[in-house]
Amino acid sequence: MKDIFRKEDLKRKPEGFSSFRSRLHEIIFESETREGRLFDILLMVMIIMSIATLMLETVPSYYAKYREVFLILEWTFTIFFTIEYFLRIYTVYSPRYYMTSFFGLVDLFSILPSYLTLLVPGMHSLMIIRALRLMRIFRIFKLDSFIDQGNLILNALMESRKKIMVFTIFILIMVCIFGCVMYLVERDVNENFDSIPRSMYWAIVTITTVGYGDISPSTPLGQFIATIIMLMGYVIIAVPTGIVTSSLMQNKKTALYNISCPNCAQDGHDKEAKYCDRCGFPLYDPE
Amino acid sequence: MKDIFRKEDLKRKPEGFSSFRSRLHEIIFESETREGRLFDILLMVMIIMSIATLMLETVPSYYAKYREVFLILEWTFTIFFTIEYFLRIYTVYSPRYYMTSFFGLVDLFSILPSYLTLLVPGMHSLMIIRALRLMRIFRIFKLDSFIDQGNLILNALMESRKKIMVFTIFILIMVCIFGCVMYLVERDVNENFDSIPRSMYWAIVTITTVGYGDISPSTPLGQFIATIIMLMGYVIIAVPTGIVTSSLMQNKKTALYNISCPNCAQDGHDKEAKYCDRCGFPLYDPE
Amino acid sequence: MKDIFRKEDLKRKPEGFSSFRSRLHEIIFESETREGRLFDILLMVMIIMSIATLMLETVPSYYAKYREVFLILEWTFTIFFTIEYFLRIYTVYSPRYYMTSFFGLVDLFSILPSYLTLLVPGMHSLMIIRALRLMRIFRIFKLDSFIDQGNLILNALMESRKKIMVFTIFILIMVCIFGCVMYLVERDVNENFDSIPRSMYWAIVTITTVGYGDISPSTPLGQFIATIIMLMGYVIIAVPTGIVTSSLMQNKKTALYNISCPNCAQDGHDKEAKYCDRCGFPLYDPE
Amino acid sequence: MKDIFRKEDLKRKPEGFSSFRSRLHEIIFESETREGRLFDILLMVMIIMSIATLMLETVPSYYAKYREVFLILEWTFTIFFTIEYFLRIYTVYSPRYYMTSFFGLVDLFSILPSYLTLLVPGMHSLMIIRALRLMRIFRIFKLDSFIDQGNLILNALMESRKKIMVFTIFILIMVCIFGCVMYLVERDVNENFDSIPRSMYWAIVTITTVGYGDISPSTPLGQFIATIIMLMGYVIIAVPTGIVTSSLMQNKKTALYNISCPNCAQDGHDKEAKYCDRCGFPLYDPE
Repeated sequence: MKDIFRKEDLKRKPEGFSSFRSRLHEIIFESETREGRLFDILLMVMIIMSIATLMLETVPSYYAKYREVFLILEWTFTIFFTIEYFLRIYTVYSPRYYMTSFFGLVDLFSILPSYLTLLVPGMHSLMIIRALRLMRIFRIFKLDSFIDQGNLILNALMESRKKIMVFTIFILIMVCIFGCVMYLVERDVNENFDSIPRSMYWAIVTITTVGYGDISPSTPLGQFIATIIMLMGYVIIAVPTGIVTSSLMQNKKTALYNISCPNCAQDGHDKEAKYCDRCGFPLYDPE
Repeated sequence: MKDIFRKEDLKRKPEGFSSFRSRLHEIIFESETREGRLFDILLMVMIIMSIATLMLETVPSYYAKYREVFLILEWTFTIFFTIEYFLRIYTVYSPRYYMTSFFGLVDLFSILPSYLTLLVPGMHSLMIIRALRLMRIFRIFKLDSFIDQGNLILNALMESRKKIMVFTIFILIMVCIFGCVMYLVERDVNENFDSIPRSMYWAIVTITTVGYGDISPSTPLGQFIATIIMLMGYVIIAVPTGIVTSSLMQNKKTALYNISCPNCAQDGHDKEAKYCDRCGFPLYDPE
Repeated sequence: MKDIFRKEDLKRKPEGFSSFRSRLHEIIFESETREGRLFDILLMVMIIMSIATLMLETVPSYYAKYREVFLILEWTFTIFFTIEYFLRIYTVYSPRYYMTSFFGLVDLFSILPSYLTLLVPGMHSLMIIRALRLMRIFRIFKLDSFIDQGNLILNALMESRKKIMVFTIFILIMVCIFGCVMYLVERDVNENFDSIPRSMYWAIVTITTVGYGDISPSTPLGQFIATIIMLMGYVIIAVPTGIVTSSLMQNKKTALYNISCPNCAQDGHDKEAKYCDRCGFPLYDPE
Repeated sequence: MKDIFRKEDLKRKPEGFSSFRSRLHEIIFESETREGRLFDILLMVMIIMSIATLMLETVPSYYAKYREVFLILEWTFTIFFTIEYFLRIYTVYSPRYYMTSFFGLVDLFSILPSYLTLLVPGMHSLMIIRALRLMRIFRIFKLDSFIDQGNLILNALMESRKKIMVFTIFILIMVCIFGCVMYLVERDVNENFDSIPRSMYWAIVTITTVGYGDISPSTPLGQFIATIIMLMGYVIIAVPTGIVTSSLMQNKKTALYNISCPNCAQDGHDKEAKYCDRCGFPLYDPE
């Protein structure tokens, strides 16, 4: 299979690509080799730790005590991610493609806020964009069938997206009507139902069976209406479940091929795909 | 197919129907043409905006600030809907049929409250009837298969309506019994369980797993009984889900034909229907 | 079919049974005839109204206002139910059988408390046993297929009762362990976790996703553990649903024959049953 | 079948094994005989009572009143379990194997804390490990098909463990993102959202539809975002249900053979297993 693509690959592979650069490419973008796998795991650990740092930093008691530790950790992660970002640009065949791809932008925006804080304070929290990088976690499990299983679920949800939309619109109309009715019933005696938007917030809290209790009806009539919306929510929850279950059971296994494009770093190609579906570069590398 | 109905159509079509009126009819009632589709989308936007206005108006802080804006917006929408209502009467073959149909009444009652407020203050909130007009939203997606998907769900629910009713009666009997038991157990120590209706309200809040917490048992025995009703609710929720899922999986696609009757504006006919199932007018128009 | 049983029926039918008594029997116990159906509906209305009376009586404000009305209503219902009870005894072939059957006892215990209150005050609330009589409501819908649908659900639950028991024991062991862990973690700082039984109550409130909020963890570690039990509850709810759904889908329609035994008033016989499964009396009456 | 194993059994059976010891082995480890079954039931009752004692002891009012009763009960259970533990060691062929097995360790750790309390106070609560012994409860129901049903559920969960993991990771990423967003939106006005970890705790409480209400959004924007996460949770709960249902429906009955290994007391062998899968000892005993 690989031989078929050899000629085209040679044609399109950038000239200045040393074998060192090719190896580095394999380590960073693929996880077939032992080094590639190790790099992916290291990266995941760094991302998780950097997110944990970001979170713990917001706890006032920790911040007071470990202010310096947080500062050091944060810049360690930022510098690591910056180096990684430039290595990705260096080793991909077509940097421009990579930089404008979804993960390319996520990679960029997850290091930018650290530098921006030096100029404008308060940009700090934007670093949470790093959480999106966690979606790369599925690459590590590539050799296992995690991706396949995830795709199965995703397909089932995709297939039933119209049913789910119709269902959601129905829920929203119900919420609209019940929110207004409750506003009319409770507004005079219950200061929590002081506007229709708040009543609708209450209706959603109730129909989804979350039930915070920060807003709850106090008149007998209000409680009776609340009872109806609860029973509705209890029965209606059967609908999305039925939709997804029947869709999951009719689904065949459709596996996606998990090699990343050497040119633009696009992921998740079809198993029979020969060319990248984003930039058209051949997926099999002759090296 | 259209040719078959030509003669009957000509017979029953009102005489004074100019081609302008016919065009207008198509724009307002159908969404096959580009203009018809545009009109439907415009109408949806107007309805959503008018509902949003109605809601935001009830927020005290907004009302204080934007009182005039709300007044202007509200009358704009009312006038638009009034014109639309009269155009519908003008372009439908049989206005009497349309005016007594479900959507005809909804259309009327969604403009009436604005005018009534001029005479009797406080009728205002009745305008929420406009929310029901949102059900027309599914017409816009006609060309897609949203209607079909919605009908699939509806059929599944319809098919299992007897099972769901039996289930609901069972839940209500349980709620009755648990409500009374909790009243007997908690009434002396917990002022929240001061009557059986309130205890039943609590039982429904609990069995549906909503759990506001505005009323909760305080005696050990009460908490033990609460525990039983919770576990019951947790297991019993499986029943409606099972019902809807098995019904959804056995369902075949049954598509409804979505042309509206030119005579009485009735919607949602069967795909093979040749005549309106409300007034008997032929559904296919020779124009 | 009826002819086959004629001889045996004549043999076992009590001698003093006038045709008036037979008619009365049909009206009270069956709902095939118009009068029988009317009687059943009247009975349901009386039961529902008597339960409603009993409930509203416990609302302090109503009781203060309508004390006399409640008293009159209550005795009206009691006298009606007493007459009905004696008519049932009079018209059934074997009163002893009827009086010791489930519904016979329910019928008796739903009138006794009213009379007992005359001797011992406070027995009043026992009247709620009347709620169990509501289960007769399904008889009214006999001609429809409600019973069949109810049996389908019941069969599905019965078939999977072992799975549900294993599942419930698993839940209880989890609740045990999480309850103890939370008690150890929170007892020093949170007065709501002051004993293991209360912690277990909290664990059940959480795992069933009811979530009152009357008891909630306050330490970070406690909140972390709570998070685990919540996610478990969220995923585990899939198990009973899966069990009931798969059982419902494999179920065939098994219809029960709904004639009540003329001898002992036993209900719910199998469709092919020729004799009562409680007293052996033939089910088909030659009259 | 038993004859086939006779020779090997004789070879490996320890020499000093009297027929009394063999009988005792059968009573303690098996539940095929009447005595074995009685012993298992007695053991269960003792475990449940000892757990109940442990729990009620933590209720301050009970502890004050029944301090001595608790002390006596606790030592009764401890001594019973100690004797039982040594009998197990005495009657198993290979004590070393049993003592290092899962249940062997649970048995040991459920009696150790009582003795440790004599030296170090406060070790008391560790006795809750006894709850794990409850898992032996399924042995009692051996003759019934409870084990099979439990295995069916377990298999279904095992088969779909990858799907459930992918789903859980997805939920956690969502929780991460929503937790941060809510922290940014609410931190200035709502002291309950004072750190990202607490916001994430709130997000999990909400997405699982538990909804304590100890933390709830107070700004309109925060409530709007909360609304989205609730609707997501409401629809997403369909995914694990769909996974487990479809897996349960494709599952065939796979029965495990429930004889315990006479050598090391390992449980739950496959139905066709001839040798223990932990120590290799033949499962059929010639006695």
